[in-house]
Amino acid sequence: MRTSQYLLSTLKETPSDAEIVSHQLMLRAGMIRKLASGLYTWLPTGVRVLRHVERIVREEMNRAGAVETMMPVVQPADLWQETGRWEKFGPELLRIADRHQRDFVLGPTHEEVITHLARNEINSYKQLPLNLYQIQTKFRDEVRPRFGVMRSREFTMKDAYSFDIDKAGMEQSYEKMRAAYCAIFDRMGLDYRAVLADTGAIGGSASHEFHVLADSGEDLIAFSTESDYAANIEKAEALAPQAQADSPTQAMALVDTPNAKTIAELVEQFDLPIEKTVKTLFVKASEQVESDLIALIIRGDHELNEVKAENLPEVEAPLTFATEEEIRELVGAGPGSLGPVNLPAPFIVDRSVAVMSDFGAGANTDDKHYFGINWGRDVELGQVADLRNVIEGDPSPCGKGTLMFKRGIEVGHIFQLGNNYSQKMNAGVLGQDGKNAMLEMGCYGIGITRVVAAAIEQNHDQNGIIWPDAIAPFKVAIVPMNMHKSERVREAAEKLYTDLTAAGIEVLFDDRKERPGVMFSDIELVGVPHTIVIGERSMDNGVFEYKHRRDGEKVPFSIDDALTFIQSKLD
Amino acid sequence: MRTSQYLLSTLKETPSDAEIVSHQLMLRAGMIRKLASGLYTWLPTGVRVLRHVERIVREEMNRAGAVETMMPVVQPADLWQETGRWEKFGPELLRIADRHQRDFVLGPTHEEVITHLARNEINSYKQLPLNLYQIQTKFRDEVRPRFGVMRSREFTMKDAYSFDIDKAGMEQSYEKMRAAYCAIFDRMGLDYRAVLADTGAIGGSASHEFHVLADSGEDLIAFSTESDYAANIEKAEALAPQAQADSPTQAMALVDTPNAKTIAELVEQFDLPIEKTVKTLFVKASEQVESDLIALIIRGDHELNEVKAENLPEVEAPLTFATEEEIRELVGAGPGSLGPVNLPAPFIVDRSVAVMSDFGAGANTDDKHYFGINWGRDVELGQVADLRNVIEGDPSPCGKGTLMFKRGIEVGHIFQLGNNYSQKMNAGVLGQDGKNAMLEMGCYGIGITRVVAAAIEQNHDQNGIIWPDAIAPFKVAIVPMNMHKSERVREAAEKLYTDLTAAGIEVLFDDRKERPGVMFSDIELVGVPHTIVIGERSMDNGVFEYKHRRDGEKVPFSIDDALTFIQSKLD
Repeated sequence: MRTSQYLLSTLKETPSDAEIVSHQLMLRAGMIRKLASGLYTWLPTGVRVLRHVERIVREEMNRAGAVETMMPVVQPADLWQETGRWEKFGPELLRIADRHQRDFVLGPTHEEVITHLARNEINSYKQLPLNLYQIQTKFRDEVRPRFGVMRSREFTMKDAYSFDIDKAGMEQSYEKMRAAYCAIFDRMGLDYRAVLADTGAIGGSASHEFHVLADSGEDLIAFSTESDYAANIEKAEALAPQAQADSPTQAMALVDTPNAKTIAELVEQFDLPIEKTVKTLFVKASEQVESDLIALIIRGDHELNEVKAENLPEVEAPLTFATEEEIRELVGAGPGSLGPVNLPAPFIVDRSVAVMSDFGAGANTDDKHYFGINWGRDVELGQVADLRNVIEGDPSPCGKGTLMFKRGIEVGHIFQLGNNYSQKMNAGVLGQDGKNAMLEMGCYGIGITRVVAAAIEQNHDQNGIIWPDAIAPFKVAIVPMNMHKSERVREAAEKLYTDLTAAGIEVLFDDRKERPGVMFSDIELVGVPHTIVIGERSMDNGVFEYKHRRDGEKVPFSIDDALTFIQSKLD
Repeated sequence: MRTSQYLLSTLKETPSDAEIVSHQLMLRAGMIRKLASGLYTWLPTGVRVLRHVERIVREEMNRAGAVETMMPVVQPADLWQETGRWEKFGPELLRIADRHQRDFVLGPTHEEVITHLARNEINSYKQLPLNLYQIQTKFRDEVRPRFGVMRSREFTMKDAYSFDIDKAGMEQSYEKMRAAYCAIFDRMGLDYRAVLADTGAIGGSASHEFHVLADSGEDLIAFSTESDYAANIEKAEALAPQAQADSPTQAMALVDTPNAKTIAELVEQFDLPIEKTVKTLFVKASEQVESDLIALIIRGDHELNEVKAENLPEVEAPLTFATEEEIRELVGAGPGSLGPVNLPAPFIVDRSVAVMSDFGAGANTDDKHYFGINWGRDVELGQVADLRNVIEGDPSPCGKGTLMFKRGIEVGHIFQLGNNYSQKMNAGVLGQDGKNAMLEMGCYGIGITRVVAAAIEQNHDQNGIIWPDAIAPFKVAIVPMNMHKSERVREAAEKLYTDLTAAGIEVLFDDRKERPGVMFSDIELVGVPHTIVIGERSMDNGVFEYKHRRDGEKVPFSIDDALTFIQSKLD
């Protein structure tokens, strides 16, 4: 590609509304432009990267035996009504009406459509296993789209769905996809991890997320220091402490605490170790609990894990915190003065809290706390659960080593759905035993557009993007010095461009009438991995100069062996 | 691909709601399934064809110097308000609101979005010419979607937009695209024609449609018998007859015609040659005419060309025929008794009508006609225009030969837009002369999903589809006879499958435990061009059997040279 016939559209200034590096660099490098909130036009450089990502995904999905399909973006409401998601899904599901006032959605995902297809097309165990995928536009009407294509409203997904006759088959299909995902992210040259994940709103029994590691990642991933255990912090289990609670050494005492509404204030004003305090948080209870609200109690220095809380059968999903008004009506005290003693509501205690002794907590009366509380003696312990986020140094749930954290960007997610959807939509097939069985399904997503942004978060420096070869928009840039004045340089550059292009290498030939400095900074911003500099002075010595985007060191190489030399750099 | 690991989904019965052959065969061959009215899921066989079509289009667009982009499916309303199409576009434009009640459309086309991009990114003539394209999902909320993917609501388009500094540049860009389109449809192996077309709602100065010729085509194309002139009948000019009107031989007479409401009745009851009759049709007049209605007068045996009529400045667009009530109020007579003599409204006369003499027409009084009308003597001629459809045998507008008709399916359309959109959206650039100039644009569409259906309309027989090699879902089918009983056949089939696949050939290996008849009829239905039959009997003679889908004749060939033989058939 000649720059003169291309839409490079690089920007010198960093757009002020771009908060994260990948968003800034995608704008500056001429990869995307905002059309409206959460809607982006992909410029040529962006599309080139996107097509490489798609190609690698498609090749590896095919290699793993998955078969490509294409489902509509616009989906009829009745399928979503069958699974109950028409009501359950939040306003992210954009519901629309056509000219005849029939209801549709812009698909944020395609479980309903594929299960509908499966119940019509798959009749017998002989057709199984089967894995169908597509690479398609999706839409989620995010309340606050941000971070460019990282959290946009319209985006491209690869979504795959496996169908098996039984659970063992589904697990095999799932393992195949896990391996295919590793092959995909390996080929893209990304540093990533497959981590245990919560199954969330999609449902199902087991799940892994694939994260591109980057300091700017929104997700915290917990790793074992001594095994390959890795889990999203949402999912990572905080093991129950092995020690029992110490015996009481203090009597319980009611203390006036008029200026201590928070744990920090309590600790500061009363010289109490934070490990001897608890937080009591009210959330909406599920229907199986008689009370409207239920309290969750965690240690003062811990954080509630909202996903673990929401997964408890006693807690209503989605997780909803009680308002101060609701708490006052129930308890007669504000949120800053709550605790387990004399609490007029059911509560669940975190595993770490269950082994505390002589601890302090609100007295369920404004401006008062109890100190020296002990379980059993002062209040019954009741239900215990894993409620908190793990912290670095916690023992790993795998039994080996302790946990350490890294940040990641989720780019893929695989689920064992089981018969969640097939049951609701009556997608059964004839088994080998002659009986009808519900399809066992898995589903497998990759955020194609998101991968592009995640790759940049992981691979950039102060001058711009540093693409891994496999997904670079161009592998090689040719930068001729003063070509418009030197016929010799022009001829050499044209010849090299012709030779490299004929060898199937994607080349950006900067044939603009620009100063070398402008060309170099554009090439660095765009992130082309390999640059060839052609100038009169080095040509006098029979060489061109090579530099790699990562180190920038200039290496002369013989003009006569140019193609061979460059190919060796690409391999 | 092994059939056992694929979703073949062929149907024995023709679905009753599929009216045209391509729709029937796409359902029967397992290419598509209806999800809702005008919405289709593409099954694996369909997707494979689609990807070939996309690949050929992409390669030829790139070769022609066009650069790929990707614009959102969901577009903000404000851009459509800028061009006035938010109001003008009919209910085919699906208008939607997001969660914040902001207005958007599901894009049926992307002129607004690309012009918005161009006004931001293109600043100087130095960046021109530029041609940007995308292959993207589009949506048109058709009132009555039908014919499968031929007229669906959601579909895939390749749309390209060229930008030039002046009209001469735009014409060059247009010619490049015309050549690229020819290369595309040539490579797909389709019998097609580029024909002159009306510019319609998109606007602009010149336009060609690309039609795949097929007897079932919705469009009539007029060809010259002696030149390469070809035009959509909408566009084909009916030349003015060279002869003048004959001198009157009859006096005008008022005749009672109580039972002649139609031309056919008039001709039959009064022994009048149909060429001596005229039809008078009332349509809504444009603002430049004082009357609300205007009459269009054509010969009794001719058909009104609605596109030509709509393009007249005196006629309101879109063309709207007057109701019987409106006509009665204006004329005092019904639509069956209208004519030019004493017509209390303006009228325009077709070129063929202008040279008539001694002709009959309604008297603008119910149940009465005038016979023996002559222009000038009985009524002033007034405005003459080309109003009718050409018919076979008309002289060709190119001046050579006469016209003959073929039917076609429109699969591509290219337009010279000029500065239609750039003016409205203020998309100007700095010219070489230092002055600001509005961008001169062209736009170029190919209906990717429609091409698939059109190819089938042109290439099928009673047993199914006959794919041209270039877009076939599989090039070769391997059909082993009784493989599940003969280890020899199985081994030979597996080896051939491995060899062909390794050579990069797309093969469907029918490894199902089915009777040969079932396999053959599936392969024929799906339309795989080349079939290799492997059986014990022919293997005894050292041969496999080859047959081409079009003739079905079995040709034995040596097992030892299998790969070479098959490759020779593909070349």
